[in-house]
Amino acid sequence: MLVVTTMHLSEKHQEQFHHQFPQHELQVYPSIDEARHSLPQAEILLTYGEDLTVDLLEEMKQLQWIHVISAGIDRLPFNELEQRGILVTNARGIHAIPMAEYTIWAILTLARQGKKLFTQQEECLWDRSTRMTEVAEQTLGILGTGAIGQEIARKAKALDLRVIGYNRSGEHPKHFDVIVTGADLNQLFQEADYIVSVLPRTADTDGLVDQRRLHLMKRDASFINIGRGNVVDEEALIEVLRNQRIKGAVLDVFQTEPLPVEHPFWSLENCIVTPHLSGRFPKYMERAMNIFYHNLHVWEDRTGELKNKVDLTRRY
Amino acid sequence: MLVVTTMHLSEKHQEQFHHQFPQHELQVYPSIDEARHSLPQAEILLTYGEDLTVDLLEEMKQLQWIHVISAGIDRLPFNELEQRGILVTNARGIHAIPMAEYTIWAILTLARQGKKLFTQQEECLWDRSTRMTEVAEQTLGILGTGAIGQEIARKAKALDLRVIGYNRSGEHPKHFDVIVTGADLNQLFQEADYIVSVLPRTADTDGLVDQRRLHLMKRDASFINIGRGNVVDEEALIEVLRNQRIKGAVLDVFQTEPLPVEHPFWSLENCIVTPHLSGRFPKYMERAMNIFYHNLHVWEDRTGELKNKVDLTRRY
Repeated sequence: MLVVTTMHLSEKHQEQFHHQFPQHELQVYPSIDEARHSLPQAEILLTYGEDLTVDLLEEMKQLQWIHVISAGIDRLPFNELEQRGILVTNARGIHAIPMAEYTIWAILTLARQGKKLFTQQEECLWDRSTRMTEVAEQTLGILGTGAIGQEIARKAKALDLRVIGYNRSGEHPKHFDVIVTGADLNQLFQEADYIVSVLPRTADTDGLVDQRRLHLMKRDASFINIGRGNVVDEEALIEVLRNQRIKGAVLDVFQTEPLPVEHPFWSLENCIVTPHLSGRFPKYMERAMNIFYHNLHVWEDRTGELKNKVDLTRRY
Repeated sequence: MLVVTTMHLSEKHQEQFHHQFPQHELQVYPSIDEARHSLPQAEILLTYGEDLTVDLLEEMKQLQWIHVISAGIDRLPFNELEQRGILVTNARGIHAIPMAEYTIWAILTLARQGKKLFTQQEECLWDRSTRMTEVAEQTLGILGTGAIGQEIARKAKALDLRVIGYNRSGEHPKHFDVIVTGADLNQLFQEADYIVSVLPRTADTDGLVDQRRLHLMKRDASFINIGRGNVVDEEALIEVLRNQRIKGAVLDVFQTEPLPVEHPFWSLENCIVTPHLSGRFPKYMERAMNIFYHNLHVWEDRTGELKNKVDLTRRY
């Protein structure tokens, strides 16, 4: 089989591949443009999932399988992949721990006014009047109760937060005190001291956090987004932050990334901006490649179970 | 009985006192200077514990009991209190939750480079190359395994950290994977990715974190201090931070407080300074006064058990 990457893969990982799969060929290209002449022969594609267009897919006559080295697959040409019966697997699940750690950092940074403390340090200001909140016994609302939402809930329970989850199925995973679904989402917005969205980009999540729901939030509540930017009405969020109708926001994802330099989020005092890195951790590539290796063994031996097969109809 | 305070007590708390103890008199003064003329009659003293001198104690001929509205009692005139058989109780324990939350915030801020991310936001800089660490499976060393140390250990275990504790007794409380004592403290310094000190100020803790031990730390390890400043050789800490022999520090307590404006800690890039507020939380006074009320009932009724009686010989 010919495996083609449209992303950098270190020498170490290339050696690991050849060691485990001496019978297969690996061609590594840093981008899909540079991989262009190999696409017609590629049988397996390794990609971050953001570079594939319908036209490029058209050129890939031999393609049987795409392994996406991330969890975000919302830019894939789903219809065409489904029609051609191409297998898609991804790296979902490996981000659960770092994204949950990011969320706990965000919650405690909001509660303990981390941004203000850093500003005071810059000014050598010893001000003990800065108000600290205790997160124990406060309420966290989590939009999305999959692997990431569950890991956040588990850690939040250890900090003695009450945890409300939102999903479409009404399913009740461990570590959630309450699950709401449908219109009861409003209850989550009314009760939570912190709301974190881990929702993926789908037609159903578009604009879910809109002006009406943001106005349901308590004045001392905060919003955290580590899922996808499309979920939020950014204009409405700017308005509630600017008018201090809510306490603050910690945002890692945006409708447009990189966030444009002139965007108001950068300079709003009660808004913390990070450059889409909540899922980052040092052994990212190792864990993502291990899923690929597992699946390549299953594919070859025709035994065992594929990990993280994407449902092309449901699109996640 | 005449209860005299040398600290502000809100109307609300004064009313609660009179409601529960109509038989006792309460005189509220914002400082010991303003309380001066009432000291000779005071039978019970409510204080933050930092204002009492041998001379002032000498004036308080009727004094039977001091309730300290904090955990830090290191400035009390222990010898004189012991000689006169004066009861001392304090508010220890009520800080465990906020101080543990502070510690988790500090660990995650170090792991996720919170200070650098804020600097990048100030510059509207979208830089995804900032290196994130995952704390899961890293090692935390906790100096001090009392109520605060145990609460930190409990939360750290939920973040899947390995936890090593240090104490003098060798006692092994829950949530610690390993306890070291005596010279084995060196092992903690060698193995930990994060070391947090919650040690009180005593003769034994003076300079415990010295140059030799700081040099045992790993290059990517960090030091957090929420106990007392005397524990650390500050010159040695400045040296290892400046030369990046360790990764960073988060310091809430210092040898001199407020930290002088010219102190190097303020401006060291890999040092986070906060103004002794790790124990702060909104219901502080309520919880501290509830301990006093409990003890006053026990004192009156001569039944039940006093909470948080200070051992004047051991001095904590």
